[in-house]
Amino acid sequence: MIQYKNMTKDELNLAFELVKARYAEFCLRGLSLNMARGNPSRKQMDLSAAMFTKVNVDEGFLNESGIDCRNYGGLDGLPELKSLFADMMGVESSQVIVGGNSSLNMMFDTVAQFMTHGSYEGGTPWLKQDDIKFICPVPGYDRHFKICEYFGIQMISVPMDENGPQMDKVRELVKDPAVKGMWCVPKYSNPSGAVYSDEVIREIAQLDPASKDFRILWDNAYCVHHLTEDEAEILNLLEEAEKYGHEDMVIKFASTSKITFPGAGVAAEAASAKNVAYLKKRMSYQTIGPDKLNQLRHARMFRNIDDIRSHMRKHAEILRPKFQTVLKRLNKELSGLGIAEWTNPKGGYFISLDVMDDCAKRVVALCKEAGVTLTGAGATYPYGKDPHDSNIRIAPSYPSVSELDAASELLCIAVKYAALEKLLQL
Amino acid sequence: MIQYKNMTKDELNLAFELVKARYAEFCLRGLSLNMARGNPSRKQMDLSAAMFTKVNVDEGFLNESGIDCRNYGGLDGLPELKSLFADMMGVESSQVIVGGNSSLNMMFDTVAQFMTHGSYEGGTPWLKQDDIKFICPVPGYDRHFKICEYFGIQMISVPMDENGPQMDKVRELVKDPAVKGMWCVPKYSNPSGAVYSDEVIREIAQLDPASKDFRILWDNAYCVHHLTEDEAEILNLLEEAEKYGHEDMVIKFASTSKITFPGAGVAAEAASAKNVAYLKKRMSYQTIGPDKLNQLRHARMFRNIDDIRSHMRKHAEILRPKFQTVLKRLNKELSGLGIAEWTNPKGGYFISLDVMDDCAKRVVALCKEAGVTLTGAGATYPYGKDPHDSNIRIAPSYPSVSELDAASELLCIAVKYAALEKLLQL
Repeated sequence: MIQYKNMTKDELNLAFELVKARYAEFCLRGLSLNMARGNPSRKQMDLSAAMFTKVNVDEGFLNESGIDCRNYGGLDGLPELKSLFADMMGVESSQVIVGGNSSLNMMFDTVAQFMTHGSYEGGTPWLKQDDIKFICPVPGYDRHFKICEYFGIQMISVPMDENGPQMDKVRELVKDPAVKGMWCVPKYSNPSGAVYSDEVIREIAQLDPASKDFRILWDNAYCVHHLTEDEAEILNLLEEAEKYGHEDMVIKFASTSKITFPGAGVAAEAASAKNVAYLKKRMSYQTIGPDKLNQLRHARMFRNIDDIRSHMRKHAEILRPKFQTVLKRLNKELSGLGIAEWTNPKGGYFISLDVMDDCAKRVVALCKEAGVTLTGAGATYPYGKDPHDSNIRIAPSYPSVSELDAASELLCIAVKYAALEKLLQL
Repeated sequence: MIQYKNMTKDELNLAFELVKARYAEFCLRGLSLNMARGNPSRKQMDLSAAMFTKVNVDEGFLNESGIDCRNYGGLDGLPELKSLFADMMGVESSQVIVGGNSSLNMMFDTVAQFMTHGSYEGGTPWLKQDDIKFICPVPGYDRHFKICEYFGIQMISVPMDENGPQMDKVRELVKDPAVKGMWCVPKYSNPSGAVYSDEVIREIAQLDPASKDFRILWDNAYCVHHLTEDEAEILNLLEEAEKYGHEDMVIKFASTSKITFPGAGVAAEAASAKNVAYLKKRMSYQTIGPDKLNQLRHARMFRNIDDIRSHMRKHAEILRPKFQTVLKRLNKELSGLGIAEWTNPKGGYFISLDVMDDCAKRVVALCKEAGVTLTGAGATYPYGKDPHDSNIRIAPSYPSVSELDAASELLCIAVKYAALEKLLQL
């Protein structure tokens, strides 16, 4: 394979003619596919079909300790589920708050609390401090960035590599007392699939920020979401932080959205005793309690963390061929051309594709025109602005293998199309 | 019956001896009952047992329009449920946002949005305005007041009568631009059972507050929660407000917490198109969507508002004897003594009891000591401070009829006990 940069103008023109023809053919197919969001597929959701029968008149609606899960109460969740999440999140049961169906909602509410009341009891509301900032490892999760955007928190990008964010940059940034927090997806990161190394996690635990307000929002969304048998284990940040008396700096999040049902799972957050008390205080004004019936369904479905682990292997069996289909196409069509790089994740929900600078938006637009929706280019960066316009997030979970094969063939054609347009200065 | 105030000292002393003896006897019974919160009883929750089977593999998990309710999405709720709540709340479907399991949570989040972003697009965040205030009709719902307390909103009490809040006072107060809102439970008000009259609702609709920020939080928690066949209908505040171009002043709330399951019902808010857009904008940052499976359960249980109405009559049949038991005791023990007044509500969840000034805390403490928990005295007032220390909220829904009979006998004894202590200046 000749790299595009080594081609003559005639060769590039010829390549472009071929790519244009293939693209035109795709446009005629009338595809209508979506690789934009990490939605589990129907088959994956079917894995939890048993949950529909877990709470009914025969099984009853009392939990193990006799709580009637239909009624009010239980601010921080059912004991069974607190204990299950404790095992998932590497904390004590008492450190867990189990909430509703959305960990994003818990993150939003946590930041909202910090905005109106400060990030600890007696702290100054962030809204009353000027020009506060967050560290955002990039590429990252668009919905994290959107929360900052909503609250007017200035975002500072820090590049990620395969071991996590560049920690020398992070260490420098936290010297600024206006820097109040950092978003992290430490395992199978969205979108790169990076797994934070032990060294990076130790360095995060040792951070000594200028602001006492500083909080790490540790969104371990893919903690049990392996794709291969090489199941990543990461260091326990909260435990590491405790070694330095930094345990109040960390708030962990997780959910069963991609274990059971995306819209009807259960979310949780976990933190130090002091943080948990502070978060629960707000919640005591906000609600009488979460949906305990749905928590009971989950508790009956998963007696312990091993039940979850074996359940997740079934997810992996469904997801793996989908990732492989996309990767095979990327390899076949784009390897050796010098116009794209991509990740080969061992877990999570995304493949991160870097195309030539200034080409990502064009690629997404070309795909859209031919009927394949991708995550908007730039979405993986704060303010939706990728400074290189090169990163594209691919979500292979929802379409079928054959749909993915077609969609990723089109994607590859679009990547070449945009690259050739650029090189030919069209 | 001689009124206590007309008794001689000797008569009072004799009465006190008798009451003390009865109280002492109660203390020996070892009661352990709770009339503190408006929790539906098991029998009431059993009325919705069918809901457990409404969503399962046989019935499927697609809604009428083919949405897979297990997956992400649907920010403002399933169309079926929006339409059901629209009928319940007297609005168009497009004006409804259906959320999670708690209307309190929706109220809290709405006020939180106003605190950080103002009460309309482009408004000044309430947190950035000094000394903002809310009008609180009293006695009222403690959890409304707690939301104000949490956000540091100063509360101004306005007395309620059987027709709603004293509107001359309200009209005077809204001339102050620092007054940003008012809490209302317009039907079968918590705790008095008052039903806002047409005149009061028209006057609320016509309010011309000095602050453009002003919002009425219209918590119609008991909109279909009748106890008798004399089912109250109230004017539609949003419709009335529209007549004066005041539709942006009103935000309505409702839920199925006391229709299906307190902890696993569905909540909704409804407002003008402009307000709905503003609320949904915040939600688009906060969550990907509510639990649509639980919404689907509800949609399949209640095809229309008539299904809800007939379901609520079954609730009334369970609740009515409980209210009657308490009222019978109150009548038998306290009528004619001139030491207490109470309401005889036609709906809702509470009886409001006014004892002699400075006696409510004592009554609650006496009951507590003998094993009956009541709502804390003062809870129905802002900051938990009843200026007369006279109001007690009775919640008869949860205990059985025989338990209620015992508990309310004890309550009556405690009311006499406290009154006699006061009159005898002990």
